[in-house]
Amino acid sequence: MSKVPYKIYLSENEIPRAWYNVRADMKPDHPPFLNPGTMKPMTLEELEPVFCTECVKQELNNTDRFIEIPDEIRNFYKMYRPSPLVRAYCLERELGTPAHIYYKYEGGNTSGSHKLNSAIAQAYYAKQQGLKALTTETGAGQWGTALAMACGYFGLDLTVYMVKVSAEQKPHRRAVMQTYGAQVIPSPSDTTEAGRKILAADPNNTGSLGTAISEAVEVALQKEGTRYALGSVLDHVLLHQTIIGLESKIAMEKVDEYPDIVIGCAGGGSNLGGLMAPFMADKLAGKTAPHFIAVEPASCPSLTRGRFGYDFCDVGHVTPLAQMYTLGNGFIPSANHAGGLRYHGMSPVLSQLYHDGYIDEARAVTQTEVFEAAVKFARVEGILPAPESSHAIRVAVDEALKCKETGEEKTILFGLTGTGYFDLTAYTAFNEGRMTDYIPTDEDLEKGFATMPKVSL
Amino acid sequence: MSKVPYKIYLSENEIPRAWYNVRADMKPDHPPFLNPGTMKPMTLEELEPVFCTECVKQELNNTDRFIEIPDEIRNFYKMYRPSPLVRAYCLERELGTPAHIYYKYEGGNTSGSHKLNSAIAQAYYAKQQGLKALTTETGAGQWGTALAMACGYFGLDLTVYMVKVSAEQKPHRRAVMQTYGAQVIPSPSDTTEAGRKILAADPNNTGSLGTAISEAVEVALQKEGTRYALGSVLDHVLLHQTIIGLESKIAMEKVDEYPDIVIGCAGGGSNLGGLMAPFMADKLAGKTAPHFIAVEPASCPSLTRGRFGYDFCDVGHVTPLAQMYTLGNGFIPSANHAGGLRYHGMSPVLSQLYHDGYIDEARAVTQTEVFEAAVKFARVEGILPAPESSHAIRVAVDEALKCKETGEEKTILFGLTGTGYFDLTAYTAFNEGRMTDYIPTDEDLEKGFATMPKVSL
Repeated sequence: MSKVPYKIYLSENEIPRAWYNVRADMKPDHPPFLNPGTMKPMTLEELEPVFCTECVKQELNNTDRFIEIPDEIRNFYKMYRPSPLVRAYCLERELGTPAHIYYKYEGGNTSGSHKLNSAIAQAYYAKQQGLKALTTETGAGQWGTALAMACGYFGLDLTVYMVKVSAEQKPHRRAVMQTYGAQVIPSPSDTTEAGRKILAADPNNTGSLGTAISEAVEVALQKEGTRYALGSVLDHVLLHQTIIGLESKIAMEKVDEYPDIVIGCAGGGSNLGGLMAPFMADKLAGKTAPHFIAVEPASCPSLTRGRFGYDFCDVGHVTPLAQMYTLGNGFIPSANHAGGLRYHGMSPVLSQLYHDGYIDEARAVTQTEVFEAAVKFARVEGILPAPESSHAIRVAVDEALKCKETGEEKTILFGLTGTGYFDLTAYTAFNEGRMTDYIPTDEDLEKGFATMPKVSL
Repeated sequence: MSKVPYKIYLSENEIPRAWYNVRADMKPDHPPFLNPGTMKPMTLEELEPVFCTECVKQELNNTDRFIEIPDEIRNFYKMYRPSPLVRAYCLERELGTPAHIYYKYEGGNTSGSHKLNSAIAQAYYAKQQGLKALTTETGAGQWGTALAMACGYFGLDLTVYMVKVSAEQKPHRRAVMQTYGAQVIPSPSDTTEAGRKILAADPNNTGSLGTAISEAVEVALQKEGTRYALGSVLDHVLLHQTIIGLESKIAMEKVDEYPDIVIGCAGGGSNLGGLMAPFMADKLAGKTAPHFIAVEPASCPSLTRGRFGYDFCDVGHVTPLAQMYTLGNGFIPSANHAGGLRYHGMSPVLSQLYHDGYIDEARAVTQTEVFEAAVKFARVEGILPAPESSHAIRVAVDEALKCKETGEEKTILFGLTGTGYFDLTAYTAFNEGRMTDYIPTDEDLEKGFATMPKVSL
C-alpha cells in the first residue's frame, strides 16, 4: 500500500447525498422538547413560528435514518467541500508517537469553521419557504459569520445578536458579518424586551449566548416573515453537521483506516455530534466502534460537572425546555474565558448518548493547557487553530503521548473545527503570559443549578 | 466530457518536482543587479553576506530552465498544497457572462497568501547553510507571517521589520507572527542606523517597504549567522512562486482548458510572475499564449506611470541597483491606501517582460473599484479576498463583462493570492462609505523620480 497522503480529498461526486439522522438509531431517543407552559412535548405548530418549517420537521424526525441534501445545498458545499482529512505527520513526528493522528479540517472557508454546513442549509430552507429574514445569536462569531455568508448568498436579511464581550473583543468578526450584509447588535441590547430586562437588572452585563438567544428569538417571533436560526445544540443542526463525519468515514476507508478514538470539542455539541455520527452508528448497531471523547472547557463544564435534566435553552426563558446536561440557564462563564464553548447546556442528542454510555468519556481542560497545544500545533502543522478546536487538539496530543508510552499504534481522529484568525487577542494574552485559568467552584455551580426550572414529569 | 468540478485538485504526487526559471528562456534577460559603488554587476561574493548562498545562486542563474525542489520543501508544500484551481461558477452566474473564470486560490494556509511558497524555500536553504536567523520586512503582513511560519517550522530566529502604519492598523498580524516565534519591530525604528536617520528627518514617518528593507538588510549584514529574506521582486522569489503557475497549468490541462487571459495583481511581482511563468514559456517559445494583464493600484502605479531604469530597491540605499519600472525609491504611497502592493519598484523579470511586450498590458485600478469587486466576489464565491488579490478580481470581472457584451466564451485565469481576514479595517471603511481614492499627480511622481540614482552605463 502506498503511503497515506498528507491530505485526503474526496471528489465532489463523493460529497454525501444525504445527512445521517443518528436519532433514528438511538434506543432510547432523547426526551422531547417541552412547552414550558403546558409541560407537553412541543409540536410542529408550536415550533413553526420560531424556526423555518423544514428545520422543525427535521427537528422532530426520529425515524428517517437518512435525509436527502437538496442540490442547491450540495452545490454550495462544493465551493468549500469536501474538506480535507489531514494526516498529521508533522505533529506525530514532533510528539514521537506511533499513533496515527488524523484531523478533519473544517476551517478552510471564510466563516472559519464548520458552522457553515448548517448555516447554508437553514438559509436555504428559509428561502424556499419564502421568508424574508433570519435572526440569530453569536458568541465567538463563527456562527454569525457563517449565517451571514449563507444569508448573503440567498439574499436574506439577517440580524445577529452578538454576545457583548465578544463584540468588543472582536470588531473584525463584526466587520466580516457586515461585509456579507448582516446587521450586528451587541447583546444584551435595548432592542428587545429580554435585553432591556437584563440591562435593567445589570447595566454592565457582558452578555452570554443564553441572553443573545432570547433576544434573537423574540425578534423572530415579532417580525413578519422572520425566523430564528440556531448554530448548535438542536437536532437539525447536528443533522447538517453529519456531513463532517460522513466525509471523514469515506476518506478513512480510502486509506484503510478506522479510528480507535474520536475526539471533538463540545460547546453546544454540533461539531462532535456531526463528526462522530456515522461512527456512532456502528456503536449503536453493536459493531466495533471508536472510543468517543467529548472535550469541554474547565470553565464551562456542562458534561463533566453539569446536571442531566430539563432546562431552558436561554436565559430569558423564551425557548422550550430541553433534557440535557446543563449548568443551569443562569450560568455565565467568567469573562476571562477566551474560547467559545460558553454555552450552559449541551445538545440533547449528545447528552443522551453520554448519559447512556455511548459517548465513552467527557474531559474538561483549562484554557492555558489548550493554548499550549494550539501553539504547538500551529508551529508544526501550519494551521492556526481556533481556541474551540484546540480543546480537541489538547486531548488528541495527550492520547498520542499515551500511545508513545505504551507503544500502541492507535488511530486517532479529531475535529479541527476552525481557525483562530479572530482570536488573536487571546493568543496574544497567552504569548505574553497573561492568560489565566478559571474553574468554577462548587458554589458557583450551585448558583447556576438554582436557575434550572423545577420539572416533575 | 463531464462537467468541470468547482475545485480542481491535483494529487500530492502531481506537485511539481522543479520550479521553472523563466529567465533561461528570456531573450534578452533583464540587465544585472549593479553594485552602486562600482556600478559593476553584483557577484555571488557580494550578495552572500546579505542572502543565503543557495538563494543567491538561484538569483544569478539564467541558464537552467528547471531547478529541483528539495524533498523537505515538497513535504512542507504537501501540508497546504496543491492549492485548488477553482472554477468560479457562482461569479459567472452572477455576472451572466459566457466566460469561463478560473482562479488559483493561494489563501488556504495560515499565512493567508502565496508568500509561504517562497518563505519555506528561503528558510530551508538558510537552515541547510547552518544559519541561525533571518531578518525581513513586511508591509500588509502576509510575507512576515509566511516567513514566521517557515522559520518556526525550521527553528530559525526571525526579526520582522513591519511598516509602522501597517503594524498599527494590524496588531493581529503581529500577534500571528509572534505566535510563530518571530520578533516584530515597527519600522522605521531606532534599532538601526537607517531607521534612526529616517526618524531624525521625520519623527512621524509612517514607514514604507523601502524603509523596512533598509533596516532588515542592515541587521542581516551586522549579525553573525544572519541573512536577509525578501518576499517579492527578486528572481529567486519569482522562481519559487512558479509552483502556482505550474500547478495551474496541469490542473487546466486536466479539464481541457487553456487560458485566453491571465490576470495577476502586481506589487513586487512575485504572484503574477509565478502564476504566468509556465504560460509565458509558451509565448517565449512562439506558441499560442494568453493575453497577460498586470494589475496595480492607481495609488502606486509603477508599471503604468513609472520609469524603466536603474533604481535602489530600498529607501536607505543599502541594496543593489535593479533595472526595473519604478516610481523612485523615495516614493511613498498615501497612507490612505489600504491594500498591499505599496512597493515603489517592480520585479526586474516582470519589468523586462513588460518592456519587451511579452506582458501585454498593465492596468491601474482605484481602491474603491477594487473593494467593490471584493465584496461582490466574497458574497458569491464565499471567500473574503485580500485587497491585493482583489485588484485581479476587479479586472477579471471587467474582462468577463466584456465577454458578456461580445458573447465571447473566453477562458480567464486569475491569481487569488490571499484572504482578507486581517484587512477588515479597510473593509469596514469601504462598508461605511469612508474609503477614498488617491491618485498621485504628475508632480507627486516627479518628486519620486527625482530620488532615482543617476546611472549612465
